[in-house]
Amino acid sequence: MLSSCVDLLEWDEETYLPRGGVEHRSEQLALLAGLLHDRGTDPRIGELLGDVEGSRLVADPESPAAVNVREIRRDYDRERKLPRKLVAESARVTALAQQAWADAREAGEYDLFRPWLERILKLAREEAEAVGYPAVPYDALLEDYEPGMTTADVAQLFEELKRELLPLVDAINGSRKPRSRTGVQRREFPVDRQRIFGEAVAGAIGFDLKRGRMDSSLHPFCTGLGPGDCRITARFSTRDFAGGFFTVLHEAGHALYEQGLDAEHYGTPMGDAASLGLHESQSRLWENLVGRRRSFWQHFFPRARAVFHEALQETRLDPFLAGINRVERSSVRVRADEVTYNLHIFIRFELEQALLSNDLKAADLPEAWNAAYKRYLGVTPANDVEGCLQDGHWAEGLVGYFPTYTLGNIYAAQLFAAAREQVGDLDAQFARGDFATLLGWLRDHVHRHGRRFTARELVERATGAPPSWPPLISALKEKYVDQEGR
Amino acid sequence: MLSSCVDLLEWDEETYLPRGGVEHRSEQLALLAGLLHDRGTDPRIGELLGDVEGSRLVADPESPAAVNVREIRRDYDRERKLPRKLVAESARVTALAQQAWADAREAGEYDLFRPWLERILKLAREEAEAVGYPAVPYDALLEDYEPGMTTADVAQLFEELKRELLPLVDAINGSRKPRSRTGVQRREFPVDRQRIFGEAVAGAIGFDLKRGRMDSSLHPFCTGLGPGDCRITARFSTRDFAGGFFTVLHEAGHALYEQGLDAEHYGTPMGDAASLGLHESQSRLWENLVGRRRSFWQHFFPRARAVFHEALQETRLDPFLAGINRVERSSVRVRADEVTYNLHIFIRFELEQALLSNDLKAADLPEAWNAAYKRYLGVTPANDVEGCLQDGHWAEGLVGYFPTYTLGNIYAAQLFAAAREQVGDLDAQFARGDFATLLGWLRDHVHRHGRRFTARELVERATGAPPSWPPLISALKEKYVDQEGR
Repeated sequence: MLSSCVDLLEWDEETYLPRGGVEHRSEQLALLAGLLHDRGTDPRIGELLGDVEGSRLVADPESPAAVNVREIRRDYDRERKLPRKLVAESARVTALAQQAWADAREAGEYDLFRPWLERILKLAREEAEAVGYPAVPYDALLEDYEPGMTTADVAQLFEELKRELLPLVDAINGSRKPRSRTGVQRREFPVDRQRIFGEAVAGAIGFDLKRGRMDSSLHPFCTGLGPGDCRITARFSTRDFAGGFFTVLHEAGHALYEQGLDAEHYGTPMGDAASLGLHESQSRLWENLVGRRRSFWQHFFPRARAVFHEALQETRLDPFLAGINRVERSSVRVRADEVTYNLHIFIRFELEQALLSNDLKAADLPEAWNAAYKRYLGVTPANDVEGCLQDGHWAEGLVGYFPTYTLGNIYAAQLFAAAREQVGDLDAQFARGDFATLLGWLRDHVHRHGRRFTARELVERATGAPPSWPPLISALKEKYVDQEGR
Repeated sequence: MLSSCVDLLEWDEETYLPRGGVEHRSEQLALLAGLLHDRGTDPRIGELLGDVEGSRLVADPESPAAVNVREIRRDYDRERKLPRKLVAESARVTALAQQAWADAREAGEYDLFRPWLERILKLAREEAEAVGYPAVPYDALLEDYEPGMTTADVAQLFEELKRELLPLVDAINGSRKPRSRTGVQRREFPVDRQRIFGEAVAGAIGFDLKRGRMDSSLHPFCTGLGPGDCRITARFSTRDFAGGFFTVLHEAGHALYEQGLDAEHYGTPMGDAASLGLHESQSRLWENLVGRRRSFWQHFFPRARAVFHEALQETRLDPFLAGINRVERSSVRVRADEVTYNLHIFIRFELEQALLSNDLKAADLPEAWNAAYKRYLGVTPANDVEGCLQDGHWAEGLVGYFPTYTLGNIYAAQLFAAAREQVGDLDAQFARGDFATLLGWLRDHVHRHGRRFTARELVERATGAPPSWPPLISALKEKYVDQEGR
C-alpha cells in the first residue's frame, strides 16, 4: 500500500509535477523509502515467516500461499541484508545523479556526470557485497531484476544470439540499400489525433481505460498504481508517427501484463510481475511481433487513414509497412529497430560488467563506448550525448538492468511462437481485429501466475523449452530475409 | 511531509484517477491517515514541547519559534483528544458517504444519503465531545476551521450582516427588472481557449506557473502540495464563460496565498495558512472585488476579445460587465452572485447547528432546507438535488465549515478597503495591468504571517478594526446601488 503511494509520487513527477516541486518531491520519496525499508525489515515479518514456513499451509509449492511465503522471504532476506544507511544513501545519490546526468546532457559534458557514475558504481558494489552472490558481484544486481538468472546464464544466451544476429544484420543491410524515408515520415500527424488513435488502438488490443489512463511524459513508461489503476505515458511529435505510436503499443503491452495480474492477490508476490525481462517480453511482443505485422495493419491501416486523412491519403499499405520496418545501424538505442536493438544491449551488458568489476574506469567509458559501437554497429556516436550519456539508467542506480531488454525480446519471440502454435491462425485473427485470443493465451500462460514461477520456469512451462534464441532469429528471418518487406 | 503525500493522492483522485482506482485510493488514504495520527500523537512531541515551552526560545510570542511551539501544541492537544478509533471510523465513513451522496444525487433520492448524514452527525458530535468546547458542540468543530472564532461570534457577525443584506438584495432586485441574459451567455467559448486565457490571467495576477499548474476537475479546488508546487483546478463549459473564468480567479486567489507562505517555514505552522476563512478571503478578493471590477476588465477585455474573437466580436465592455455582475435570487450556492451568496451560507449555518444539536432530525432536512430558501431567497428548489443534496461538504465530514465562506467575504472586503487606502489608486493600477502592488500588500499583511495570528487578529492588525460587516456592505452598495452597472 505504501509502495503504491511511492508509485503515484513518481508517476506525478514524470507527468505533471511543476519544476518548482522537484526538490520537495525528492524529500517525500526519501521519507517513504525509509518507511518502506523500516517496515520491510521489521523482524516481526521474519517471525511470521518462520511460523508458516514448513507448515501445511505451504505444502503445495505452487499454491498462492506457498508462493507468497517463498517470495516474501526472498524480498525480506534481501532487504535485511541492505544496511539502512546504504538504502538512504542510494536514494539521495541517485536523486542528485539524475539531475547531474540531465545537466551533463544539456552541457554535452560527460565529466559532469562521471563523478556521480563513480559514486553509483561504488554503491552498487556495496549493495552486491551486502547481498552476496554465487560467482561475480554483477549476479547480485541482476538477481534483483531477473530472479533465477546468473551473469553466466545471460552471457551464454547472449553469445549464442550474437553469433546469429551479427551475420543477420549484415545480410539485411547488404542485400539492399537502406530504405529511403518514405512519404509517411515527411508528413504531419497532429499530436491530438495521435493521442486519440493511440488510445483507441491500446483499447482495441485490450488495455482497459476504465482501469487505467494515458498521459504524456518525456520518457514514456507504464506503472501499475493499484488494482484498477494502471497508467501508461507516451510522447508524440508531429513528424514522427511511428515513434509515438510504437511507444503506446509498447507501454500498452506492459499495461496488459499489469492488468492481467490477479487483483485478488494485489500487494503480495502472487499479484506481482515475475521479472523485468518477462515484463519487457509483454511490451516487445505487442510492439514488434504484433504491432509491426502486416495482419495488424490490415485491420488498423484503414482506421489510421480515417484519423490521419491528410497525412495518409496517398499512402498504400506496403510502403507504410516498409516505413515502420526499416533496419538501420544507428547509435541511439531508443530509436533502434527490432533487429539491431539487441546489439545496443550487448554493448551495455559488457560495459556495465567491466565498470562494476573495475576493469573499466568511469573516466575511460566514452572511449570504450565508442569503440564498442564501432565494433558492433559500425557507427561512431556524434558526441557523448548520443553516446554514453544517452541512457538514464545508471543515473537512476539501475546497474544490471539492461540485459532484461534483450531477455524480453527472447522471451517474447518464444512465447509468440508458442501462442501461434496453440491458438490457431493469429494473422487471420489480427486481420479481423481479434486480439483477445492472443491476450487470453498470455493471461493464462503468463499474467495470472504473478511470481509463482521465475521467468525462466514460466517460459519453459508455456513453450516447452527454456529461454533460447531460435524463435527470435526465426521471427526476424521470416520477416526480413524470407519475405522481404512483410 | 507525509501529509503532503496525502494531498497529492487527493489531488490525483479529483483530477486523473481512473474510476477503477477509487477503492484502492481510499485504502491508501486510510493507511496514511493512520500513520499521520500515530505520528501526530506521539508522546515524544509532547515531551519536546514541554522542553521548549516557557524557555527563552519562545520569549517573543510573535517569533517563528514561539508561533510554531504554540500552534504545534494546539494541533497536538486536539489530535491527542481524538481516539484513534474515531479518526479511522471518520475516514472510512466519509469515504463511503461521499459515494452515497453521489449516488443519491444521481438517483435524486435524499433517502439514500440520509443514513450516512446521520452517521456523520453522530461522529461530529463524538468529535466535539472528545475535543471539548466553551459553550456548544458546534464551537469545537468551528474551532478546527476558524481558530479563535466561536459560534456566538459568528452568529452575531452574521446577524448584523443579515440585517443590512436582506434589504439590500430587495433594493437591487426591486430597483430594476432582473437583467436579461446578455449576448455573452449565448455565445460559444471554446474550452481550450478558456483554459489558455484563464492560465494567462492567473499568471498576470501573480500565480507562478513554474511553481504550480492548472488542471480540470468536477469540483474545482486549490491545493498546496509543497513549497514550489501549488495546483488549482477548474471546470470549463463552452456556454458558460463566466462560470469557468471566475472559478480560475477564485482558485488562483487561494493559490496566491499558498505561494505567498514562507517556504522557509514549510511544514510548520509558520508556513501554513491561518484559517479557512482567511484562505477564502483571498479567493473572494480576487474573484469578486478585483475580477468583477470595471478597471480589471479595462485591462483584460481587449485581451479576452483577442482570444475569443468570434464570441466577443460584437460585445462592448458595458454589457459584458453587466453580464458578469447579474444579481438574482436562486437556489444553488455555487452559481450564486456575490450579493446573494451569503444568504446561502446563513441557511447552512443555521441548519447545521440544528442538525448537530439534534433540534433538527436528518429526516426533516429537505423540508427545513426548502423552508429556509423560501424565507431567505424567496425561491423553492426544484428538487433535493438542487436543494439539500447540492453540497458535498457534509458527506466529506465537513460540519462547521460553511461559515468560513461568508467570513471570507467579510475579511476580503475589509482587507481590500484597507489596501485601497494604503497603496493608492488600485483602479488605476488594475487598468494598466498592475496587480503586483495589491499582491505585495497582501503578501505583507496576510500571506507571510502564516499562523502567527488568528484570522481575527490579523484582520484587525491589517485594517485597524476587528472583522465587521460595513466594508462588505459598502462595496456592494457602491457597485450595485450607487453606481449601477459598474
